[in-house]
Amino acid sequence: MKPYVHTVRYYECDGMRVTHHSNYIRFMEEARIDWMDQLGYGFERMEAEGVVSPVLEVNCHYKRPTKFKDTINIRVRVKEMSALKMRFEYEMTVDDQVVCTAESLHCFLENGRPVSLEKRFPEFYSLLMADNG
Amino acid sequence: MKPYVHTVRYYECDGMRVTHHSNYIRFMEEARIDWMDQLGYGFERMEAEGVVSPVLEVNCHYKRPTKFKDTINIRVRVKEMSALKMRFEYEMTVDDQVVCTAESLHCFLENGRPVSLEKRFPEFYSLLMADNG
Amino acid sequence: MKPYVHTVRYYECDGMRVTHHSNYIRFMEEARIDWMDQLGYGFERMEAEGVVSPVLEVNCHYKRPTKFKDTINIRVRVKEMSALKMRFEYEMTVDDQVVCTAESLHCFLENGRPVSLEKRFPEFYSLLMADNG
Amino acid sequence: MKPYVHTVRYYECDGMRVTHHSNYIRFMEEARIDWMDQLGYGFERMEAEGVVSPVLEVNCHYKRPTKFKDTINIRVRVKEMSALKMRFEYEMTVDDQVVCTAESLHCFLENGRPVSLEKRFPEFYSLLMADNG
Repeated sequence: MKPYVHTVRYYECDGMRVTHHSNYIRFMEEARIDWMDQLGYGFERMEAEGVVSPVLEVNCHYKRPTKFKDTINIRVRVKEMSALKMRFEYEMTVDDQVVCTAESLHCFLENGRPVSLEKRFPEFYSLLMADNG
Repeated sequence: MKPYVHTVRYYECDGMRVTHHSNYIRFMEEARIDWMDQLGYGFERMEAEGVVSPVLEVNCHYKRPTKFKDTINIRVRVKEMSALKMRFEYEMTVDDQVVCTAESLHCFLENGRPVSLEKRFPEFYSLLMADNG
Repeated sequence: MKPYVHTVRYYECDGMRVTHHSNYIRFMEEARIDWMDQLGYGFERMEAEGVVSPVLEVNCHYKRPTKFKDTINIRVRVKEMSALKMRFEYEMTVDDQVVCTAESLHCFLENGRPVSLEKRFPEFYSLLMADNG
Repeated sequence: MKPYVHTVRYYECDGMRVTHHSNYIRFMEEARIDWMDQLGYGFERMEAEGVVSPVLEVNCHYKRPTKFKDTINIRVRVKEMSALKMRFEYEMTVDDQVVCTAESLHCFLENGRPVSLEKRFPEFYSLLMADNG
């Protein structure tokens, strides 16, 4: 899987001239969606089948500030998988220096009820387990 | 109608330590929604009845920069009404000094087709005409 | 200390018609700044004296989705204080139901170097300890 | 000059599942900065020399909605140049269909006072005039 690349925009920086910390949560989402696209199982496909994957938790450790025009490389990995939940892990680097590490926890809902990914999307589940392995 | 008040947040300011110009478009939306609420005809009510009012045009004239914690007073007025479109006018002030003037043009769509506000929501239309008068 | 109130804006909601999860990180910042203002020791005052307090970590547990126009009450508390770092804790409720709990960790920097809050701002430090107690 | 490409992110879409109209103002900024980079005279270089170019006006005509993952091509052109101001023109397309046209007006300030681009940055001014020609 190729890392996702986000180049910091002017409007993503704050009065300290660094990327506002809230934006890293958005970069995580961008990287996660790109990761699913690379896996060949897009976000839209799951949504089209009526399954959504809300974010249950995020955490973010800011290691070094980034600034306008910095090119952030974001590596995504499945950290944990269970029948009902999955946890992603993120490492963000600029010029090979870690700027942020993060995690997000997700479940899967269909008609507002938790759904087992393994039963509902066995093919997708296998792909995820392979990445997790 | 009372002016809408927006207090500038830290994350709305950019590296020049002023409110990023894109955010005024969002303040316009906040003020417009508040204005409809004050009129007694909320955004949700129209959407609940299946009518949406997309933005066709915006323009914004930035007169003076604003900064973190500034209290912006936003006055909204209907500038023009026709069967199918309406134009809002906005004046934003901080301490009675104009910081931004703006306009937005909207139409009304039901099932993706233009709808006459006068025919579809005569009560709302009358309220708007009254404000416009 | 009064809880901070954030009313969800239209543009803060995503395609699922719920508040996008990244925005809670911004609500935390709004509430933290309001908390410091209530304490009588504003963000600006510290910045004016050349001390900044970057965010080192955030975590957010999303309990229930919120939607357009929801009024979120945000309670802020100092969870931990040390010479060099402080951790805030947040509880967000809508109609007395918890929608999100969160934490943020901060340090204090002057000219890019860690600074002891206790030594640099003894008055502010005492206020914080009182809240923490 | 190559058009700038912006791919619509999930968090840029609103409850109608279309790109929120405020974001186009941000896309304009991204495209304008890319355009200056292609010209070989970056934003940072001007800022480093103490000259800023605040936005005086924007206007945006929304022609067709765009949605998550749409690839927007943005063409930027200098529409008007004078000693003290410049106006950019933008055309945004998705699959060769125009989705938005826009303009922005800028001045140049040094130490808070208007500065003549022609006198202050003759080289940059020539480049701009060439594009405008």
